[in-house]
Amino acid sequence: MKRSTLAVALICLGAAMPAAAQFRKPEDAIKHRQSVMTLQGYYAGQILAMANGRAAFDPQLAADNAEILVTLTRLAWVGFVEGTDKGETNAKPEIWKERARFDDTAKKLQDDVAKLNTAAKTGKLDQIKAAVGAMGQTCKSCHDNFKRE
Amino acid sequence: MKRSTLAVALICLGAAMPAAAQFRKPEDAIKHRQSVMTLQGYYAGQILAMANGRAAFDPQLAADNAEILVTLTRLAWVGFVEGTDKGETNAKPEIWKERARFDDTAKKLQDDVAKLNTAAKTGKLDQIKAAVGAMGQTCKSCHDNFKRE
Repeated sequence: MKRSTLAVALICLGAAMPAAAQFRKPEDAIKHRQSVMTLQGYYAGQILAMANGRAAFDPQLAADNAEILVTLTRLAWVGFVEGTDKGETNAKPEIWKERARFDDTAKKLQDDVAKLNTAAKTGKLDQIKAAVGAMGQTCKSCHDNFKRE
Repeated sequence: MKRSTLAVALICLGAAMPAAAQFRKPEDAIKHRQSVMTLQGYYAGQILAMANGRAAFDPQLAADNAEILVTLTRLAWVGFVEGTDKGETNAKPEIWKERARFDDTAKKLQDDVAKLNTAAKTGKLDQIKAAVGAMGQTCKSCHDNFKRE
């Protein structure tokens, strides 16, 4: 029952998501989401470094990373299940108190990453810069609102 | 220079891989690989539970998870860069001493997961069972050889 409720909740996010999230312990859900965030940071960070001129532009790397981010941003929300606002987490309780707002940001990030993926496939740095800038704003706004320092 | 050497090493794995791995600190590489392993365990674990009858068979979930595993098993090796055998890691030094053997296992896992993905798309539990069993053997053999308890 709990599982089907969650599946419905994920479907309501309006984006392609894994069909069900099940964790044995709250810590497992926290570890799942922290793992995805670590990887998102790594792959987005490499694209950002190219966009900012801190790293040489490598069109293939940018395209590979954008494709990886499409998968990762689908998985990023799976671990934010009810009852996981305690423990070793920087997640603010607002995630669960303002779930619709959080879900909107989740949807926005997935849209941003889809656009980044399209931009990266062109191999044009200017397009990648614009797309990664928009994505970065969404990351920041979600962290500002929903993540403890 | 270091980066291009690594890129060649990844290409030699014979599988689609991100073009370059760069980490600011050894801990970042360790965190990257541990994050991927956490996620692999989660998505493979759900398929295994269905195969073992511990969870109800959900063909869509199995197919979604197998697809996710295709991406994750590409990323699983990125963090095993030289000089990251120390610190908070269960990686055995054998990974770097017997690199060719480790890379063979990495390649094998990606092949196993490709087969699991094909099996999962059929929606037939018997085929999924066989494929997930083979994959599990590869996971186990890699952990036996290259992971500290």
